[in-house]
Amino acid sequence: MQDVDLLIVPRWIVPVEPHLTVHEDHALVVDGGRIVDLLPADFARQAYRARETLELPNQVVLPGLVNTHTHAAMTLLRGLADDLPLMNWLQDHIWPAEGRHASAAFCRAGVALAAAEMLKGGITCFADQYFFPESTVEVLREASMRALVGVPVLEFPTPWAQNAQGYISRAVDVIEANRTHPLLGFAFAPHAPYTVGDPALERIAMLSHEMDVPIHMHVHETAFEVEDAVAQHGERPFARLKRLGLLSREFMAVHMTQLNDQEIEDCATFGVSIAHCPESNLKLASGFCPVSKLLDAGVNVSIGTDGAASNNDLDLIGEMRTAALLAKGVSGNAAAFPAAQALRAATLGGARALGLEERIGSLERGKAADFIAIDMDQIDSVPMYDLISQTVYATGRDRVTHSYVAGRALMRGRELQTLDESAIKAEARQWQQRIIKGLQA
Amino acid sequence: MQDVDLLIVPRWIVPVEPHLTVHEDHALVVDGGRIVDLLPADFARQAYRARETLELPNQVVLPGLVNTHTHAAMTLLRGLADDLPLMNWLQDHIWPAEGRHASAAFCRAGVALAAAEMLKGGITCFADQYFFPESTVEVLREASMRALVGVPVLEFPTPWAQNAQGYISRAVDVIEANRTHPLLGFAFAPHAPYTVGDPALERIAMLSHEMDVPIHMHVHETAFEVEDAVAQHGERPFARLKRLGLLSREFMAVHMTQLNDQEIEDCATFGVSIAHCPESNLKLASGFCPVSKLLDAGVNVSIGTDGAASNNDLDLIGEMRTAALLAKGVSGNAAAFPAAQALRAATLGGARALGLEERIGSLERGKAADFIAIDMDQIDSVPMYDLISQTVYATGRDRVTHSYVAGRALMRGRELQTLDESAIKAEARQWQQRIIKGLQA
Repeated sequence: MQDVDLLIVPRWIVPVEPHLTVHEDHALVVDGGRIVDLLPADFARQAYRARETLELPNQVVLPGLVNTHTHAAMTLLRGLADDLPLMNWLQDHIWPAEGRHASAAFCRAGVALAAAEMLKGGITCFADQYFFPESTVEVLREASMRALVGVPVLEFPTPWAQNAQGYISRAVDVIEANRTHPLLGFAFAPHAPYTVGDPALERIAMLSHEMDVPIHMHVHETAFEVEDAVAQHGERPFARLKRLGLLSREFMAVHMTQLNDQEIEDCATFGVSIAHCPESNLKLASGFCPVSKLLDAGVNVSIGTDGAASNNDLDLIGEMRTAALLAKGVSGNAAAFPAAQALRAATLGGARALGLEERIGSLERGKAADFIAIDMDQIDSVPMYDLISQTVYATGRDRVTHSYVAGRALMRGRELQTLDESAIKAEARQWQQRIIKGLQA
Repeated sequence: MQDVDLLIVPRWIVPVEPHLTVHEDHALVVDGGRIVDLLPADFARQAYRARETLELPNQVVLPGLVNTHTHAAMTLLRGLADDLPLMNWLQDHIWPAEGRHASAAFCRAGVALAAAEMLKGGITCFADQYFFPESTVEVLREASMRALVGVPVLEFPTPWAQNAQGYISRAVDVIEANRTHPLLGFAFAPHAPYTVGDPALERIAMLSHEMDVPIHMHVHETAFEVEDAVAQHGERPFARLKRLGLLSREFMAVHMTQLNDQEIEDCATFGVSIAHCPESNLKLASGFCPVSKLLDAGVNVSIGTDGAASNNDLDLIGEMRTAALLAKGVSGNAAAFPAAQALRAATLGGARALGLEERIGSLERGKAADFIAIDMDQIDSVPMYDLISQTVYATGRDRVTHSYVAGRALMRGRELQTLDESAIKAEARQWQQRIIKGLQA
C-alpha cells in the first residue's frame, strides 16, 4: 500500500481529458498537491492508504473551472450602472467611480470578494486585469487560489500609473517580484487597441518574448471599435496587432465579437486563444463572438465572466451554459458547441489559454489537484440521462460543494477555508457606502 | 388591532406594481389567502395582530414568478436528447419516447417533479401543455399550486386521443369537470399551426369564446415553420390564425421568433400575449424573438421556460436573466429590456398572459397572496446598489427560501410543504430506468 495525502471518492468523475469520459465509482488519488492516480474506487482503497478520504456519494468531481477573463476588484461595482451601452457605461459611470475610489485598499477588498464568489462557484483559477496588481497578489497568496494576474497598460493616467511607460515599468516590477509563486502567474494586459499606442504595444511584444510572459487584451469587443479604427487609421485593430508582432500562442484575445475569415485563420495559425465572454457581450450589446466558426477552424476557445460590473456575477457555470446556448442561436445550428465542448472550454480550454495546460484543466496523473465537486442529488438533477449535459444545462453554481487547488481545500461543504466570508462581505458593504456617498457628492 | 392570518416582514418588498418600487422595512399583510395591506413594518405591527409572523431579515419578497410555457410532464425526459435541431429532436427522440411511455402515471410523476422544481425556484404559477391533463390536475390539487392547464389538440393519434375531434371532446370534459377549482384554470392548447387543421382551429376559436377559455399555441417557433407554410399554402401561419379568428386577448402565442411588422402590430391590436422562451429558442437554434420591438409596440411579453426536455431546467430566474441579456444582444441596444422590465414580464406580464392579472402578478391589496422570498445575504449579493438589478442579473434560484400560493406556504426555508421531495425524486428515478430500458429495447 502506498501512503498518499488524499483519496476522493465521488459518485462520478468527469476528467475532461479524455473527452466525453464519465467514470462512475472511481477515486482520485492526490499526493503532494498532484493527482497521482485515477482508478476504480475499490482498487484505490486496496492500493492506497490515504491520510484523508473524502466520500462524495452524490457528487460529480470535475476539474476546477478556469475563468479566463475578469476584473476581480470591480466586483465592488457590481450593479452600479446597468442596462447602459459600453462607452456610456465606461465613460459616465465606471471610469469616474474608479477614478474616485480605485486604490490598493479598494483592490484588496474587491479581489477578496471576487475570490470568495469564484471559489464558491467552482472557479479555482482566473485571469485578472486590473490596477494595483500587487494587492491582487497579496489577497491571492492568502487565499491560496490560482490565478494569472494581468498587469495593466494604458496610455492615460489612472491612480496606478501616469503613462504607458509608467505602467510597463510597474508591470515589470510586479512580475519580477512575484513570479516564483507556485500558484500565481502574470500577463501583460494592454487594455485595448484603442487605449494603447504602437510603441507601447511593440515594447510589450518584446518584453513578453524576453520574459516569457503572456499578453491578455480586449480585442474587437464591439463593431464600433473596429469601424472607428478603420475610419481613423485605415486598419482593423487585429490586423494592427498582427503587424506589431503581438500574435502568438502567448496572446489571449478577449471578446472578439467582430471577426472576418482572415482573422479567424490568423487566430488558428498563430495559436491565439479566445476569451469568450458571452454574458458581458450580451449585456453591453457588444456583438456575438462566432464561437462555432472559431472551433471549426481549430482555434482554442475559453470562457470568461468579465467583471461583475458588466455581468453581474462571476458564475462560470452560468457562463458556460450561456455560451453553449448562444453559440447555437448565433450559428443557427442546434448541434453547435455541445455541452461537453462547453465544459472543455471552461476547463482545459481555459488552461490552454493561460498557458497552463500542462498543469491544470483536466484530471490526469501528474497535473495539479485542482478540482471541484458538484451535488447532483437535487430535484432538478433528476432524471439523469447524460451527466455532462446535466452539469452544463441544468446545474447552478450553488450546487458546488468543494473547491480544491493543488490538493488543498479552499471550500469544503460550502464553507470557505482560506477566506473569511463574513469579514469580506462586511468590508464590501463598507465600500458600498463609500461609493454611494461618492455618487451623491 | 385587526386580526389577520399572516404578517410577512422582509428586508425589502418589490411589489412590481407600481413599477420600479422598492419598499424597505415594510410588511405584507395576508388574510384569507389575500393581500390586505402593504405598509411600513412598524405601522403594521401596531395595526394588525397576526396569527403568524414571518420575519425575513435578509430577504426580498416578490410576487411569485409566473412561468407561461412549459410541458411539466416532460421533465422526466430532461437531458434525454441534447444538442440536436428541433425536428430531429422531436421526431427521432422525444416523440418516440412519448409514444412508448406517455401515460397518466408518467404524467403524474413528471408533473410532481416539475411542480417541486418550480416551487423550489420561486415559480408559483405556470401554464402547461401536455397530454393527460387530468393527471396534471390531480397532482396540482394535492400540491395546492396555481396553474393554467392547457388541454392539447393535435390531428394525429397519441396515447391520449386519436384525432382532433377526440382531443377537443376530452378537453371540454376535463375543463368542465375542474373549472370551479380556485387555483386551476384551463386553456385550449392546439399544438401548432402545422399540426392542427382549419376545422379544428375554428372549433377551438368558437369554444374559447363560448366557454371563456383562453388559447395557448406554439406559433412561428422557427423560420422553417413559416417558410414551409408559405411554400405549401401561400400563407404565413400567424396570418392564418388571424383569418380563422383566433387572435384576441385570450390568445397566447408561444415562441414567435419570426415576426414581421404587420404581425407585431396585429399582436398589439388584438391584445395577443407572447410567451417568450429564450433558452429553448437558443438551445434548439429556433431563432430570436424580437422582444424589444414587441415591447415598443405595446405588446404584452411574458416568459416561459418551455419543457425541461429542451432547456433543461424550469428556472424562471435564469430565464428572466437570459431574456434581459438576449434582448440587448439581439436589438443591439444595451438599454433594451432592463432588469425591472424583465422582472415585470416574469410576474405581471405572465399574469396578464394567462388572464390572471386581476388576481396575481403583483403585490397589491386584494390580490391573492402569491409571493416568494429570496435571500440576498450571500457573497454574490454584495455590494447592493440596485436591488432589482441584483435580483435579475446576479441571483440564482437556489436562493429562493419561501414560496406561497394564496397565503399558503408551499415552500418554507427550502422545504416543500405539500409535496414529498424524496418520494418524487425516487419515482422520477424509476421512470428514468424504464425510459433507458425503452431506449435499449
